Amino acid sequence: MNKPAIDVLGIGNAIVDILSHEDDAFLAARDIPKGAMTLIDEETAAQLYSEMGAAVEISGGSAANTIAGIASFGGNAAYTGKVRDDQLGEVFAHDIRAAGVQFNTPPATTGPSTARCHVLITPDGERTMNTFLGACVNLTSADLDEKAIADAQVTYLEGYLWDKEDAKHAFRTAAKMARAANRKVSLTLSDLFCVERHRTDFLDLVRGNVDILFANEAEIMALYEVSDFNSALAAVREDCEFAALTRSEKGCVVVNGAEVFHVPALPVEKVVDATGAGDMFAAGFLFGLTNGRDVENCARLGVLAASEIISHVGARPETPFAELAHKHGLA
Amino acid sequence: MNKPAIDVLGIGNAIVDILSHEDDAFLAARDIPKGAMTLIDEETAAQLYSEMGAAVEISGGSAANTIAGIASFGGNAAYTGKVRDDQLGEVFAHDIRAAGVQFNTPPATTGPSTARCHVLITPDGERTMNTFLGACVNLTSADLDEKAIADAQVTYLEGYLWDKEDAKHAFRTAAKMARAANRKVSLTLSDLFCVERHRTDFLDLVRGNVDILFANEAEIMALYEVSDFNSALAAVREDCEFAALTRSEKGCVVVNGAEVFHVPALPVEKVVDATGAGDMFAAGFLFGLTNGRDVENCARLGVLAASEIISHVGARPETPFAELAHKHGLA
Repeated sequence: MNKPAIDVLGIGNAIVDILSHEDDAFLAARDIPKGAMTLIDEETAAQLYSEMGAAVEISGGSAANTIAGIASFGGNAAYTGKVRDDQLGEVFAHDIRAAGVQFNTPPATTGPSTARCHVLITPDGERTMNTFLGACVNLTSADLDEKAIADAQVTYLEGYLWDKEDAKHAFRTAAKMARAANRKVSLTLSDLFCVERHRTDFLDLVRGNVDILFANEAEIMALYEVSDFNSALAAVREDCEFAALTRSEKGCVVVNGAEVFHVPALPVEKVVDATGAGDMFAAGFLFGLTNGRDVENCARLGVLAASEIISHVGARPETPFAELAHKHGLA
Repeated sequence: MNKPAIDVLGIGNAIVDILSHEDDAFLAARDIPKGAMTLIDEETAAQLYSEMGAAVEISGGSAANTIAGIASFGGNAAYTGKVRDDQLGEVFAHDIRAAGVQFNTPPATTGPSTARCHVLITPDGERTMNTFLGACVNLTSADLDEKAIADAQVTYLEGYLWDKEDAKHAFRTAAKMARAANRKVSLTLSDLFCVERHRTDFLDLVRGNVDILFANEAEIMALYEVSDFNSALAAVREDCEFAALTRSEKGCVVVNGAEVFHVPALPVEKVVDATGAGDMFAAGFLFGLTNGRDVENCARLGVLAASEIISHVGARPETPFAELAHKHGLA
C-alpha cells in the first residue's frame, strides 16, 4: 500500500499570539491563573492588551503549531481552522502556508475578527494565555475537508475546540470521518481547565474514539480524577493505543499497550518562553509515528522539538526541525 | 529655567515590521539590494510577502524605534506618525504607547492600510528592507502638534519622510516650528539610496537647519559626494553643531565643533538581526544629550543601545535600556 498523501491533518483554533513580558504581579493584580489558558471576550481582550507592554505578534494556535512543527520535520501536513478576512487572518494564513502546510479553510467574511491569544511571559519563562476566540466560533462541520481527512494517516484534534458548540460538532464529525476511512484519531487534552470543563465528554472520546492521546501530568490526572501519575498511567493504557504524557523537566512517558517508555528532557540553557512546548512534543511524536519510527524514537523527536521551542519567544520553530533531528542523530 | 516637558519628539513613517529569515539567493533572485531600504507598492508587497518564509510582526519605523529607545532609557518622548484604523495600526499604536511614548496622531480612516516593512534577515544578521508606505502618505502638516514641538528639546526627523510630498512639507514645517521655539532640530539621513534620491534637499537642510545629524559612513560620504570618511567629517563639522556618525563594527565618531570623539563598538556575541542599530544609536545619543550628559557619554549610550538591538530579532528594545545603562556604569 502506498503511504497516504498526508501524514497528519490538524484541526484547531486558528490564532495569532500577542506576546509580551510581564511580571508575576501583573498576573496577580488581574487574578489571571498562571500557566493556564483563560477564555476572554473581546472587551476584556482590548482592556488587557491596553495594559500589556510592547508586544510581538507570531502565529499560534495549539494544533496549528503542532502541524507547523510536523512540516518543519519534513512531514506532509494539512490544517483546518477559521480566521477572518482581516490583517491578522492574513498573517495566520501566510505563516502556516509558508511553513509548508496545506491550508484551505476559507476565511470568514463576516463576524468577529481573527482570534488573538495574549501570551504573558513571566521572568521564569512560563506563559499564561488569555484567548479571545473571535472568528474561531465560525468553524463548522462544513469547513471539514473529508478527502483530506481520508488521505491523512492521523487526524489531530485539540481539546480547545470543545469550548464552542459548532467546533465541538465539527470535532466529532472529523473523528467519525477519520474512523470511517480507517485512519487514526489523535487528541491533545490542551489545558487543565479545559479538562475540568469537559471531563465527561473527553472521557467518552478517549474511551473508544482516540488512538493517540497527548496530555501533560496535570491534565491526565484531572481526566481520570486521580491524585497520582501512576494511576493515570494505568487508566489510560486501557483506553488508548498510545498515550504520550509530558512531565516538563522530567521528560515524557509513552504508553503503548504493555510497553512503557521513559525519555528524559533535553538540557536547555534557559527557558525563554514555554509557549508551544506541548504542541511541539506532539509534532515530533506524530511526525515519527507517521514516518515509520519506533515509539522511543518518536518520543525523542518530541522532546527535541520541545527543547527548541522553549529556547526562544514564540511557538513556531526558528531552526528547521529536520536539521535539528539530523544534528541529534534522529534523522 | 525648567527642563522642557519633552526630551525628544520624533516624526517619521509609522510602520509595522514583518521579519523573516531568508538566504542571499532569495535577495539575488529578486534583485533586492542587500542592506538597503527599497520602497515597494502594495502589489509588490503582497507578492513578496507570499514568497517570504514564516514571519514575526514587530512595530518598527526608524524614528519610532529611536523614540521607543529614548523612552526605554527613561527619557520623556513623543512621536508623530500616521497609521490607518486597522489591526496593524492598532499594533503600532499599542506598542509605542506601551513603551511609554506620548502618541496622539489620529489614525487615517480612509486610504491605504498601515505601512509594512518586509525585513529579510540573511544568515550574516544583515537586514534588507522592503517598505510599502501605505497610510504614511497621509501624514501632513495638519498632524503636527505645535505645542509638543515647542515643548521638546529636540525635534527628530527621519530622512525617509522626504519620500512623500505631504510628509516632506510636514517635515519642513516641523523644523521651522522647532526653530521658532528656539529648540534643536535633528535629522537622520536614514539610508544611502534615500540620500541619493534627495541629496540637494538634504544638503540644503543640513546647511543651516539641522543641529544634530545622524548618518552612517556610506550616507555621510554620499551626502558630500566624497570618497573618504575624513573629507566627509571635515565638511559636516562646518554645517552642524553635532554630527554623530556610525561605522558598524568600528564604532562611531562624533564631531562637535573643534572636538572629535571616537567610541569603539561593544563586542556582541552574534549579530542576530541588524535591524534598528542606527535607530538605537540615535536613541542613546539623544537621550544623553537631552539629559545633560557630555558628548562622549552620549556616544557610549548610543553604542550600548545599538549593541542590545542587534543581539535579537526586531528593532525595539527587549531589555530596558535604563537597566542596561546602569549595568554598564552609564546611568
